[in-house]
Amino acid sequence: MPNFAIIGSGAMGSAVAKRLIDHGATVLTYLEGRSEQTIVRAKAAGMVPVGHQELTKAELILSIVPPAQAIKVAGLVADISSEMQAPPPFIDLNAIAPKTMQALAARFEGSGIEVLDGAIIGGPPVPGKSGPTIYISGDTAERSRLLEDCGLRIRRLDGPLGAASALKMCYAGINKGFTGLGTAMLLAASRSGAAESLKAELSDSLPDVDRKLSRSIPDMYPKAYRWVAEMQEIADFLGDDDPAATIFRGMADLFARMAGDVEGSRVLVGRLDEIIASSGTEN
Amino acid sequence: MPNFAIIGSGAMGSAVAKRLIDHGATVLTYLEGRSEQTIVRAKAAGMVPVGHQELTKAELILSIVPPAQAIKVAGLVADISSEMQAPPPFIDLNAIAPKTMQALAARFEGSGIEVLDGAIIGGPPVPGKSGPTIYISGDTAERSRLLEDCGLRIRRLDGPLGAASALKMCYAGINKGFTGLGTAMLLAASRSGAAESLKAELSDSLPDVDRKLSRSIPDMYPKAYRWVAEMQEIADFLGDDDPAATIFRGMADLFARMAGDVEGSRVLVGRLDEIIASSGTEN
Repeated sequence: MPNFAIIGSGAMGSAVAKRLIDHGATVLTYLEGRSEQTIVRAKAAGMVPVGHQELTKAELILSIVPPAQAIKVAGLVADISSEMQAPPPFIDLNAIAPKTMQALAARFEGSGIEVLDGAIIGGPPVPGKSGPTIYISGDTAERSRLLEDCGLRIRRLDGPLGAASALKMCYAGINKGFTGLGTAMLLAASRSGAAESLKAELSDSLPDVDRKLSRSIPDMYPKAYRWVAEMQEIADFLGDDDPAATIFRGMADLFARMAGDVEGSRVLVGRLDEIIASSGTEN
Repeated sequence: MPNFAIIGSGAMGSAVAKRLIDHGATVLTYLEGRSEQTIVRAKAAGMVPVGHQELTKAELILSIVPPAQAIKVAGLVADISSEMQAPPPFIDLNAIAPKTMQALAARFEGSGIEVLDGAIIGGPPVPGKSGPTIYISGDTAERSRLLEDCGLRIRRLDGPLGAASALKMCYAGINKGFTGLGTAMLLAASRSGAAESLKAELSDSLPDVDRKLSRSIPDMYPKAYRWVAEMQEIADFLGDDDPAATIFRGMADLFARMAGDVEGSRVLVGRLDEIIASSGTEN
């Protein structure tokens, strides 16, 4: 019996598959209609392409796709599992808001299929390194132990369905939000002729912050366009009752401006690079 | 001839005075109408109380007062200096926005009095430690060298009048903004049953961030009410053209909620303390 099916063989999906396969597992996937690049990557990872229906032969079905596709994938799994006696549990590992996770779970109501909420924090697993942490909430039957046994780092949360998704939102809010704060303030300092002094003061009195921003701001440029939607998702997650929702609506606008600059004149990128490269010393 | 006059003998003003006095300087101040506590603190630091007019006998006049009083103090200095042949330069060291600094400087127009923009970053100087850094912009005549010679850490900025104030805004935006992000996300995680996992993940993958938040969030409680105005000031400084202004309007609302909680039910404080105290481990 094959161990796993993974729907989605992007950078994360195929790397997770490879980690499982390296630990002796079989990983099924569905590739019909996918790009040549995706097919090549999935096969290179050792994933086994099968038809829709065969995905249900796995002991666990995982979804690792872009957030916008999460609900559609769940619908597919609900369809193919609907006629089965003992369908495999389904774990959504996508970066979706807890409310979206609840809507997703609703697709399975009355089907007898166990649905779990997961979230991946960290980059794709790389051979020889421990890799990301996968959080799973509501896993009272410890379905995720199978993944743990195959080399993945799993943490189970006691919280309700949606808790893992919430965790991912909160982590991103701190981590990416911090990059946003730094971006905004370095640009503002630059407009006021205070950028080099700000850099010097940060490197002096907050060296951790200085190091982190010097790395995370350039890393953000190519991702800024994706972060716009992520920040809006965090704002929605917080809800209108939470004053912090406004913070993330502002973050979304800030990253939208950055994304426009990255694709366009790169004036802001140039200014940020210059500040980050500066020794940060003043007369 | 006395070296300095300092208007304002709060925690910062009196500690700066003490540092100067410890290095052999004389520091004049004006105490009429001030509280018993302020008078005791000023005298303990060794400051010399004088009448208004005598403040102009100093070589430099410094203003170290709450931001809301900065303009009034500048007006007083403009008045007492107006009849003098060679009035001493005036340095505003308060946490005000660059625009406020420009309005303040306008009070001295045509008076021949040299006005400098300064900002103090860091806590009050403590004997045996190097103390805060004092940034001064537009100081082409190096008036601030007098302060440097008396044990203070001075950095001169090449930027225009207002650059030192801008630096202070930007630094606070990063530092206090980060505390705001952490506060918002720990509370959101707690509502979703994911707080302990978030704490564990931060301590694991972002240990610097975890340490900084564990210190800075409790430090914020008694200051939250003050930070509301500071965040609004940063939003005004950024201006409506900057999407990041929205971030700081949200921060102001967040700290207003915290300030209300600190004075009221302390439900949020209790929740944050619990998360910060948690070992951050999950099953």
